[in-house]
Parts: sequence; C-alpha cells; structure tokens
Amino acid sequence: MELDSAGKDLLFRNARSQNGWHDKPVSEAQLRQIYDLMKWGPTSANCSPARILFLITRAAKERLRPALLSANIDKTMSAPAVALIGYDLKFYDLLPRLFPHNQSARSWWAGEEKAETAAATAFRNGTRQGAYFIRAARAVGLDCGPMSGFDNARVDAEFFSGTGVRSNFLCAIGHGDSAKVFGRLPRLPFEEACGIL
Amino acid sequence: MELDSAGKDLLFRNARSQNGWHDKPVSEAQLRQIYDLMKWGPTSANCSPARILFLITRAAKERLRPALLSANIDKTMSAPAVALIGYDLKFYDLLPRLFPHNQSARSWWAGEEKAETAAATAFRNGTRQGAYFIRAARAVGLDCGPMSGFDNARVDAEFFSGTGVRSNFLCAIGHGDSAKVFGRLPRLPFEEACGIL
Repeated sequence: MELDSAGKDLLFRNARSQNGWHDKPVSEAQLRQIYDLMKWGPTSANCSPARILFLITRAAKERLRPALLSANIDKTMSAPAVALIGYDLKFYDLLPRLFPHNQSARSWWAGEEKAETAAATAFRNGTRQGAYFIRAARAVGLDCGPMSGFDNARVDAEFFSGTGVRSNFLCAIGHGDSAKVFGRLPRLPFEEACGIL
Repeated sequence: MELDSAGKDLLFRNARSQNGWHDKPVSEAQLRQIYDLMKWGPTSANCSPARILFLITRAAKERLRPALLSANIDKTMSAPAVALIGYDLKFYDLLPRLFPHNQSARSWWAGEEKAETAAATAFRNGTRQGAYFIRAARAVGLDCGPMSGFDNARVDAEFFSGTGVRSNFLCAIGHGDSAKVFGRLPRLPFEEACGIL
C-alpha cells in the first residue's frame, strides 16, 4: 500500500518552512494528536528519548526570547505554539518499562563509562523523533517552522534545569502565512546524495 | 488540510519495524521515489547533509556483514535492500549551491575551529533526513527495519573511506513478513514525554 498523491504533497512535496503565522490558535487537542502519531516512530530499543515542551502562552515564549537568534525572534514569538524538542540523557532509566522483555537493556547505556554512547543514542533517536514530530504536525493539518539557530545552553538553563533533558531544536507550529514563505531552495540530485551498490 | 486516517495508519500507527522479508525485490525506481520525497524535508540552511548508500547486491551486503551485531545479521542480509544512512561532515562545501542567496553561509561551519559545531549540525540534520527517509519509504509502499546496532567505524572504513561521510544508522527496506513482527512495545503517555507552558 502506498500513500496517495495528496498525502505525499501534504507531508513532503508541499510542506514548507514557515516565517509568519495566521492569528489562529493551536489547541491542546492538536498537540496531543501530534504526539499520538509521532510516538509510534521507531527508536533504538524503543528508547523514546524525545521530550517536548510546548510554549503556548506569551509568558512562556518570553522566557525563550533571549536565547533566539535575532533573525528568528519575530517568527518564533508570533507563532501560536513553539515546541522545544529535547532529548533525555537519562532515557535508559525508563527502559525497564519501554523494553520490558529484556530487563538488561538499561545496562547497555547506564553508567559513567557509557555516557558518551548514551548521549549519542539520545541525540540520534531524539532527533529522529523530532523529525517524526514535523511529519506528524503536517499530518494533523499544521504548518511547521523548525529552527536550530538558538542558544542551546541558555534554553537548557531556562527550561530544563535540574533534569537530564537537553534542547535539540525548536519547531514553531500553527497555520502558516503562505505570503511569507520563501522561494523553494534547490535539493541535491539523487546521484549526488545517493549511491547504489 | 489533514492527512486522512488511512494515511496516518500507513505512516505512523500501522508502521512496524521488520525482522523478516518476503522475497520480493525493491526496484531502483522505488529508491529514487524515496529520495524524491525525503529530499524536501527541512534542514538547517537547507544543508542537506544526509548521504545514502543502498546495498542491493549480495556482494555489497557481504561487505556490511562483519560490522553487524549478531542479532541483526539475518534480518539485514535477507532484506532486498539496506540503506546505509550517513552524513557528510563537509556538507558546508555545497552551501553556495544549496543556500545560494547567502554566499557567506559556508563560513558558518567551515574551518577547523568550527568542526565541532559542523559535526553536530551534520549529525542533527542528517538524522532528521534519516527519519524523513523512513517516512518516505512507507509512503512509497515499503516496510522498514531501522538499526543503530553496528560498528560505525568499521562501516565508515569499508564504505566511506577517504570521504567526509560518517555512518549514522542502517535501514533495511522491502516487503516485510508480518509473521516476524514483534508485539508492539509501549510508548510514554503524553504527560511523561510532553509538557505545556
């Protein structure tokens, strides 16, 4: 079974990063719908390290403002919701629940000597889940404006202090103003990005 | 516009990691279809660092075998195609073409003193593209078996020697044998993975 052409357009071909937003809120029900789709995406040993903080109030977004690149401030502050997509470095503590058939899975990443491997696993899988988030937001009818240009350490101190969570990237969501979308940038041809052996 | 329920099932709710494969080949046309969808996914400054090597011949897959965890050998070697999903640490050399309206973009990541930032950008965005790959493969009607459990250094030496490309994760693709799919593992409830401020 294949996705129909309208679905491919919605999720891939017509999906565009947004720079401006219509004044139309995003509901908590929509945020939950996004999570209820993205959560099914595959992660290593089902480790599911992504943690998402949705900023929907003016006060919450003001706490984010000082960490933003100046070029990103307007489009972030005007979005109805901004998702701080992070990953939990201590994801392994949940593995006894998330990977219940193998109770030794925690030991694959727990412990000081495995911290580097655990961090790479958290980052890789949390980032994959961040990409699932973008696709899921499109699937529930929302537009996205993902951004990596911000001060991660400042965001971590402001929002994730005292936890094992580290910020990864931001994704503004809402109903995009198509008049503010930039012209589409070129992509690499298959022959430059891919090979077949 | 929202993705219909069948599309949500296909891409998210019914998508399952595969452990066995039907003896039905994957065509080069399908590999190109995957890339032609995934390439549209957003990356920082359109940097598009993912590089994908599709292993479709027995000889190519045999070169991969020594790098695999023993638990992953059968399901990898029996897959009609295995995608080595990597990222190019020197992605910035293509930015004059990929981000043509700002010819200084290359300087944001080029240079020895920026190597760590460049590596994080390559890994983050290449991983996001790897997740777009998984969704795109589903969209063109293929099943996936993503795996991170392998010897990355060995894969890099075997397949990416002399380049700036580093392996990230593997994804077997084909037509999955549903009899070999494991029971679905639990996911975190919204309240544990997400917060709203």
